[in-house]
Amino acid sequence: MNQIRIGIVGYGNLGKGTELAIRQNPDMKLVGVFTRRDPQSVQILTEDAQVYAMADMERMRDAIDVMILCGGSATDLPKQTPEVVKLFNTVDSFDTHAHIPQHFAAVDAAAQASGHVGILSVGWDPGMFSLNRLYGNCILPQGKDYTFWGKGISQGHSDAVRRVEGVADAKQYTVPVQAAIDAVRNGSNPELSTREKHTRECFVVAKEGADKAKIEQTIKAMPNYFDEYDTTVHFISQEELDRDHKAMPHGGFVIRSGQTGGGAKHIVEYALKLESNPEFTSSILVAYARAAYRLHQEGIQGAKTVFDIAPAYLSPKSGEELRATLL
Amino acid sequence: MNQIRIGIVGYGNLGKGTELAIRQNPDMKLVGVFTRRDPQSVQILTEDAQVYAMADMERMRDAIDVMILCGGSATDLPKQTPEVVKLFNTVDSFDTHAHIPQHFAAVDAAAQASGHVGILSVGWDPGMFSLNRLYGNCILPQGKDYTFWGKGISQGHSDAVRRVEGVADAKQYTVPVQAAIDAVRNGSNPELSTREKHTRECFVVAKEGADKAKIEQTIKAMPNYFDEYDTTVHFISQEELDRDHKAMPHGGFVIRSGQTGGGAKHIVEYALKLESNPEFTSSILVAYARAAYRLHQEGIQGAKTVFDIAPAYLSPKSGEELRATLL
Repeated sequence: MNQIRIGIVGYGNLGKGTELAIRQNPDMKLVGVFTRRDPQSVQILTEDAQVYAMADMERMRDAIDVMILCGGSATDLPKQTPEVVKLFNTVDSFDTHAHIPQHFAAVDAAAQASGHVGILSVGWDPGMFSLNRLYGNCILPQGKDYTFWGKGISQGHSDAVRRVEGVADAKQYTVPVQAAIDAVRNGSNPELSTREKHTRECFVVAKEGADKAKIEQTIKAMPNYFDEYDTTVHFISQEELDRDHKAMPHGGFVIRSGQTGGGAKHIVEYALKLESNPEFTSSILVAYARAAYRLHQEGIQGAKTVFDIAPAYLSPKSGEELRATLL
Repeated sequence: MNQIRIGIVGYGNLGKGTELAIRQNPDMKLVGVFTRRDPQSVQILTEDAQVYAMADMERMRDAIDVMILCGGSATDLPKQTPEVVKLFNTVDSFDTHAHIPQHFAAVDAAAQASGHVGILSVGWDPGMFSLNRLYGNCILPQGKDYTFWGKGISQGHSDAVRRVEGVADAKQYTVPVQAAIDAVRNGSNPELSTREKHTRECFVVAKEGADKAKIEQTIKAMPNYFDEYDTTVHFISQEELDRDHKAMPHGGFVIRSGQTGGGAKHIVEYALKLESNPEFTSSILVAYARAAYRLHQEGIQGAKTVFDIAPAYLSPKSGEELRATLL
């Protein structure tokens, strides 16, 4: 079989998850991991793949079909994706919702110029959740959207807590409010405030001698991050944090509650329960890498999102097989 | 605005639902309903649309962009869709899973020859459920699929009960077994027999003097329809049946339970709770009529299923708007 040759840029949680996901898809193979670190210092799992420096990318352009970018959305991807798509088809998980239009424009310009496909903002939100919002809105144009996240660890909020004076380490869980979910599922179309939809739960390791009451106050009053939520703060030891809060579970719900033309009410719900956020996200990236490869084979170019990709492109099966087995 | 001009073939529950759904989509208008009955005898809701005989179709070919076929899968659609797609772009809800490959081949041959687009097997199963099975399989290649239907009325099973000797009228509900759903949601990947997944509940009006015990026995022993299920039979009056069982609710769940490369478990669930099966189904047909129109505008032709349609084609919004609001 002619395997799709994949490269990974960045070898953190998402990059490692991508490597694991490639192994579950026999029509793909990992060729190399590109890192900003010293390549000698990075140990990967795949025996017949290699670790490269970023500067090696150009000379690998004929050896890799799709590059999966596993950096962060704050500073890595806005620079990397438009650069890398000059040389390769790309998939990234850019997730700063407000900046998607400008990221799309930058990737599109570079991809159109180089004749590649750049699929951006792939993952579960943006990604699978977005798809469910779109399908829900198109089927039930008269209705309301609800998105709940969690229970799961928010990296951004955990980082914010760790920056509080006197905090040695911390993890923050976003928790959807069950009563709000129930009200939405019942079709009552409630208006929900930020506070009514989610609560926040922090597990904090305080530095020795730190003022715990002050830490708790500072967290709860933090603008944007916590002030609009009901927040609980638990002080625990570093051992407890490492033992009980090391996993990266997440999940959530997208619900479309609407009414059809004769007045009948309908609830469409998409729910995820994930033991590992990065492993699930990278599995989506890998499925879209297959789509990027195929679109490019068909002569398509430019920036794309999950909205632009026909679902069949994600599957290794032929149209005939799909119709016979999954339709 | 240049509205998409829609025709409806068949004016039963699905045809009526389609008419109602078109009214919720300002970028579309209903031009005409085509019926096998005497057009004079059919009263529709839309004031500026007309009722036509089937034979009028040919002369309307320049007045309609997409024809939505609302007949049944047993005898209507296998004949109608390949005929109608010679003149128009089409959308149908062909739902006999086992015969989809041959229906696809027939529609594709006619659509390729005439240069039209024929989207087939649109609805929620096949349709939205199929999409969720496909996305689930591509993201979690190592896993299991579970589809549950109900609680809702099955037309086929209700018909079967009505054919039993001594039965005046009947409705049959398909009911998913909660314990089975819970086991799947918990990630235990159970092997479930037909009997363990669904029960069947029949509400039966017996003819005067009929042997109720014998009716019940006959129903429960009916091969294919009931013998592999735990079935409950309730005898009620025609008044009760008309009063309490007139609505057409339905719904169900598609669950993908899988494991990513590092061993983490994940549950992806798509759930529908519908007050009116035909109104919801026809709302999906109308969204795909928009896609059929656009694909045809782009010069695409041939048979398509939901697997082949990029989600953005379903929405009246531009790519830019979609990225800014729903991604």
